[in-house]
Amino acid sequence: MIINSINYRTVWMQGSYVCMINQTLLPFQFEIYKSKNHLETANAIKNMIIRGAPAIGAAGAFGLAQAALEFEGENFNEFKNYIERDFSLLNSSRPTANDLKYGLDFVKSRMFSDNSIANSKMRAFEAAREYADWSIQVCKNIGMHGNKLIQNSQKILTHCNAGALACVDFGTALAPIRIAHYSKKNIFVYVDETRPRNQGSSLTAWELAQEKIGHAIIADNAAGFFMKNKNIDLVIVGADRIAMNGDVVNKIGTYEKAVLAKENNISFYVAAPLSTFDINAENGDDIPIEERAEDELFYIQGLDEDEKIRKIRIAPKESAAKNPAFDVTTAKYITGIITENGIIKPTKDEIWKFMKKV
Amino acid sequence: MIINSINYRTVWMQGSYVCMINQTLLPFQFEIYKSKNHLETANAIKNMIIRGAPAIGAAGAFGLAQAALEFEGENFNEFKNYIERDFSLLNSSRPTANDLKYGLDFVKSRMFSDNSIANSKMRAFEAAREYADWSIQVCKNIGMHGNKLIQNSQKILTHCNAGALACVDFGTALAPIRIAHYSKKNIFVYVDETRPRNQGSSLTAWELAQEKIGHAIIADNAAGFFMKNKNIDLVIVGADRIAMNGDVVNKIGTYEKAVLAKENNISFYVAAPLSTFDINAENGDDIPIEERAEDELFYIQGLDEDEKIRKIRIAPKESAAKNPAFDVTTAKYITGIITENGIIKPTKDEIWKFMKKV
Repeated sequence: MIINSINYRTVWMQGSYVCMINQTLLPFQFEIYKSKNHLETANAIKNMIIRGAPAIGAAGAFGLAQAALEFEGENFNEFKNYIERDFSLLNSSRPTANDLKYGLDFVKSRMFSDNSIANSKMRAFEAAREYADWSIQVCKNIGMHGNKLIQNSQKILTHCNAGALACVDFGTALAPIRIAHYSKKNIFVYVDETRPRNQGSSLTAWELAQEKIGHAIIADNAAGFFMKNKNIDLVIVGADRIAMNGDVVNKIGTYEKAVLAKENNISFYVAAPLSTFDINAENGDDIPIEERAEDELFYIQGLDEDEKIRKIRIAPKESAAKNPAFDVTTAKYITGIITENGIIKPTKDEIWKFMKKV
Repeated sequence: MIINSINYRTVWMQGSYVCMINQTLLPFQFEIYKSKNHLETANAIKNMIIRGAPAIGAAGAFGLAQAALEFEGENFNEFKNYIERDFSLLNSSRPTANDLKYGLDFVKSRMFSDNSIANSKMRAFEAAREYADWSIQVCKNIGMHGNKLIQNSQKILTHCNAGALACVDFGTALAPIRIAHYSKKNIFVYVDETRPRNQGSSLTAWELAQEKIGHAIIADNAAGFFMKNKNIDLVIVGADRIAMNGDVVNKIGTYEKAVLAKENNISFYVAAPLSTFDINAENGDDIPIEERAEDELFYIQGLDEDEKIRKIRIAPKESAAKNPAFDVTTAKYITGIITENGIIKPTKDEIWKFMKKV
């Protein structure tokens, strides 16, 4: 992604450092966090310096390569045990992201093909880079398929941040938007603020501003207004998990936008890699929804008059809050799912047919 | 309304002072603003120390009584000209609220029945008090009619603040909820945060906490989730203006909640005094929608770590925003309109029949 006119990835390796865009400071400060060892990388994942399932997967992969490079002994079995411990440590840095284990497995499975510690270290390093490159290619392909849905002069609504910052580059929901912009289509993006964590206004709007893609932040409450007044031609969102009947679990509010899109005859697309499908979930009800802390609704971070990042309380101290982090959008509201291998209709038959081809 | 166990109105007169709950400081500080003359009262309306159409109407009425009391001359014609000037000044303190002129007219029309300045002053004072009492009675009646719709143990969603703080007391959407609570029904209220100005979390939640009515603040994004999961039995919102076909103009997001309620077979009621109907608006499209400043999405007020009220910036400086303040909820999504004279079906025929009876 372009930031201050320079091409960046969300996470990469520089010597023995894992470098990542520090997302806890965005959109107020752009800073590269440089983790000097795998413990710091695990902490960075834990503290959400990096977030978004594909991005975490790559950070984990780089973290394991980093761990390998750090090993100083000469006994191969000791080395293997050491890698197992660090694998567990990195894997436990975030509880839910499936991609984290996937990235770690990718690196580990390519490390030990001979008994040489030096070779294993080199292969770990190469595997992590390969994983990140693969992750980018998946997003780029989602972008190419999704771009076919976007006409010149269209206005697109997106929710939350399924952007380059959530991946290694390109994003999922934002990939078709990027590719459309790169191919000179004149598009405009309505960015849902996405309460309570404001990933829309903090991350998506910031990404789009960096790439000079025309956009406006709107209150989540206003999406329906713009749909009803024919200001929105298309909705594209990401997904956290997809059931095998096409029900989609994504950021809270996705269900609302999908119902409103259907009511106003607007196409509603979900963009997600095939790894998002959960073959153990027959439908959305099989997927547990995380209830997060009340404090996400009670406190908010921003810049004060001295340009200092500061947290303030925005709700009465006597009140309670309920804060489900995700919702289930029933398949009937979804026009299609944009994957790296093409666009799928959200029905059980179509999804299984498609998955079997892969 | 009960605040710190004391019964308050939003606005009242104490000697020559107009007293009002300072709503710019809520929910963080409870403070009574005492305006010592009609100029200060006009400024208080302008600066939103008091807001909400019925509350502004009463503040205007008290302001005009205050102006009358301030007059020191002895020439009756001079007195009348002076009152005309102050009428205009108070009336221009907010541009859109119809109730402001209504409250001012109410007082002025009762002032000049003889040529005595002293009597006129007394009548102005009494008329303003009468107007405030009448306004409370209207809300109380809305509450009585609305209460019949609420069953014991029900969970109710409301949006924005159509509470006592927007009126002189009781509120419109919150009146049925208050009466249900006073009549010992065990109810629970889901309070939409109501971005971008957060009147739900700042004012509605605060009012409910004061009255010890069980409630939780939710992100506007989560209303659909709770409806879909059968956590909400009933929706009650206020209205800024109602067209003669039953289309309702209210705070941005109302349309979204109405569509979602219909989709989930949940009753959706609008609570508003009959004065909210605009006989010049055939349908919702006849009512212009105010586009407000981007800054409402970019900045937010709260309490910092030193318990000081402070404003911070929460969006990137490079981004634009679009901020419609209201939306139109088409009549087909509305179950009924709760007025002081009973509940109306939102159709042209029913509304005209009802208005002719008044």
